[in-house]
Amino acid sequence: MSIDDVLDIEQSSRPGGEHSVGVVETRQWTTDVPLRLDCGRSLSPITQVYETYGTLSPARDNAVLIFHALTGDAHAAGYHDPGDARPGWWDIMIGPGKGFDTDRYFVICVNVLGGCKGSTGPGSVNPETGAPYGLDFPILTLGDMVRAQERLITHLGIERLLAVAGGSMGGMMALDWALRYPERTASVIAIATMARLTAQGIAFNEVGRQAIMSDPNWRRGAYYGEHSPEAGLAVARMIAHITYLSNQQMHRKFGRRLQDRDALGYDFGTEFQVESYLRYQGNAFVRRFDANTYLYITKAIDYFDLANGKASLVEALEGYRAESLVVSFSSDWLFPTEESRELVRALQANGVPTTFMEIPSDYGHDAFFLPNDELSEAVDGFLSHVYAHALAGGQP
Amino acid sequence: MSIDDVLDIEQSSRPGGEHSVGVVETRQWTTDVPLRLDCGRSLSPITQVYETYGTLSPARDNAVLIFHALTGDAHAAGYHDPGDARPGWWDIMIGPGKGFDTDRYFVICVNVLGGCKGSTGPGSVNPETGAPYGLDFPILTLGDMVRAQERLITHLGIERLLAVAGGSMGGMMALDWALRYPERTASVIAIATMARLTAQGIAFNEVGRQAIMSDPNWRRGAYYGEHSPEAGLAVARMIAHITYLSNQQMHRKFGRRLQDRDALGYDFGTEFQVESYLRYQGNAFVRRFDANTYLYITKAIDYFDLANGKASLVEALEGYRAESLVVSFSSDWLFPTEESRELVRALQANGVPTTFMEIPSDYGHDAFFLPNDELSEAVDGFLSHVYAHALAGGQP
Repeated sequence: MSIDDVLDIEQSSRPGGEHSVGVVETRQWTTDVPLRLDCGRSLSPITQVYETYGTLSPARDNAVLIFHALTGDAHAAGYHDPGDARPGWWDIMIGPGKGFDTDRYFVICVNVLGGCKGSTGPGSVNPETGAPYGLDFPILTLGDMVRAQERLITHLGIERLLAVAGGSMGGMMALDWALRYPERTASVIAIATMARLTAQGIAFNEVGRQAIMSDPNWRRGAYYGEHSPEAGLAVARMIAHITYLSNQQMHRKFGRRLQDRDALGYDFGTEFQVESYLRYQGNAFVRRFDANTYLYITKAIDYFDLANGKASLVEALEGYRAESLVVSFSSDWLFPTEESRELVRALQANGVPTTFMEIPSDYGHDAFFLPNDELSEAVDGFLSHVYAHALAGGQP
Repeated sequence: MSIDDVLDIEQSSRPGGEHSVGVVETRQWTTDVPLRLDCGRSLSPITQVYETYGTLSPARDNAVLIFHALTGDAHAAGYHDPGDARPGWWDIMIGPGKGFDTDRYFVICVNVLGGCKGSTGPGSVNPETGAPYGLDFPILTLGDMVRAQERLITHLGIERLLAVAGGSMGGMMALDWALRYPERTASVIAIATMARLTAQGIAFNEVGRQAIMSDPNWRRGAYYGEHSPEAGLAVARMIAHITYLSNQQMHRKFGRRLQDRDALGYDFGTEFQVESYLRYQGNAFVRRFDANTYLYITKAIDYFDLANGKASLVEALEGYRAESLVVSFSSDWLFPTEESRELVRALQANGVPTTFMEIPSDYGHDAFFLPNDELSEAVDGFLSHVYAHALAGGQP
């Protein structure tokens, strides 16, 4: 879920640069204490991989937990090797002097439960069978993933987070965390997100799942060690990718330009640049992502509803206390501004100090992955404010 | 491409009703004269199936040619059998006293070349091999389809059309016809359409094609007589179907309501109503449509560019003369109003009398299939005007 080809890495953000967290390491933590899931089942053992950037203050009051989006992972910033071509997925936002300033804050990012980048997921070994879980893995909610991370945060010795933050699914998890653990959350940064997925969002996720599940190589999820359902996963990714971009941006970036051709080819090969781009995105994705994880995480996103069980979002947010920064992007049609506004109205109705901004952008939903001074400055300013407030003893 | 479940058929439009064209018959016409296609190849023989409603005037001056959209066919109005559950795809617009008033006009609708409802297409027998064409069928353009229909119109003894009309792809073909045959076109009704597909539109079409072509049953198009690529076609249809609806309508129609369940099922079955609806649409579609035709027609739509080869749309429309009615729908994000406006500006820059209206609707791109008084009245008024003008000898 990144626009790799527009991500221009400045020298100062390369390993050794003044704005880079440098070479980082992914760590892991495993617990045998079963986690009771929303579906009623329990899961154990649970491994979670995570990365941290910056230094935890002696008072342990400067920790920021960042939740990744659907296809993200724990590697949010820096490089695993000085020779890596690309840094972590949110390196533009995390580092010395950046939006999440690692000179001041201790930033943590955890691969979600159900993931395929080191945390326990459908590709992990089921201790009962000795084989990968596949579809025996329990269906998860974003709340389950949040509760798993709460254990890790506790294990790291952090009682209260200065901020929880994330974009898209990550923003949903940040909201879930703040509602679930009000005493442990000083603030929330919710970017390009909403209180529950729209019917249209569910529809796009469902078509992606259908593409995967109708690939014969999927074999009801039992494909590990065999051919994986790459074709289906690539189609799912292509569908999703269109929804991450705006119509305007696609027009500007590709228009109707042809790829490597002077004229129409009159065949079903790749002709238009936008086709070539999508096929590239689909094929690149299947090399780095697991199809079953795609099923599980999209399902968790579909299930997410901050108002769950309550008559209204306003009522549901009664226990929510954390000062909040809500950001939307003008051309994001998958997580539209109107949804952010509804969230903001519900927060304000509960007396939650809330700052809202819609950032003008042509980049659609993917805008939050891209360099954006307005976003960096808003996050930096907001964190400075809540940290000063916390240092002044202003926590509830 | 119809919202079947909101299409409520009034008694007066049932067979025998005062607003129904009644029981109709699909006819066919075959010619052995080869058609030279844009791709450089020739095609022969060519069969086209068509239906007509109303009566051709003695002066042969009241003929209206309606072009169907991607998944349509020649059966635009009336019933093939009095017991049919549903009428033709645009019965709401075609009939006595309707928008296209068959008491006054002679309405023709032809299944496009490349189609799968009777006209020659990839499922037809290739005379060179005695087997279905499959991928040996030549790649078509909308212009090829239009030129094939011009032959049929000539065969029917009609020199000049009172109007060419259509929605979506049908509107593109109407524009193409008017530019190609200015002397033979009194007017154009272009609904929910545009002068060329957007990059986003190409992207959605391409993902649909990838879904079909990655289905192992597709077998490079040579599946006739075997299992057809139903799973891939269903996914393609589901993707497209989302783009035909507006976010607002999906929210109103489905929201996050569950299907046949009181609570979340925590499995990958159909849970949300919107999922159930999409799966139903996908499965119903594969029973009535051919996967190769879907590939060929989407490709033809991608290729369509009214400005083709010219520096600008304004320049390209220099020879266009037909008085035009251009209609868009406010919530149509696949064929957005802005694209209609661009077309209208280019027509007006060429001195073409053009009426433009954006009809407020929540139904997205599919709005033109649904009962809409504004649309009916606009079409009726426009046709009355151009017919009066033609009768007064006002043709160029």
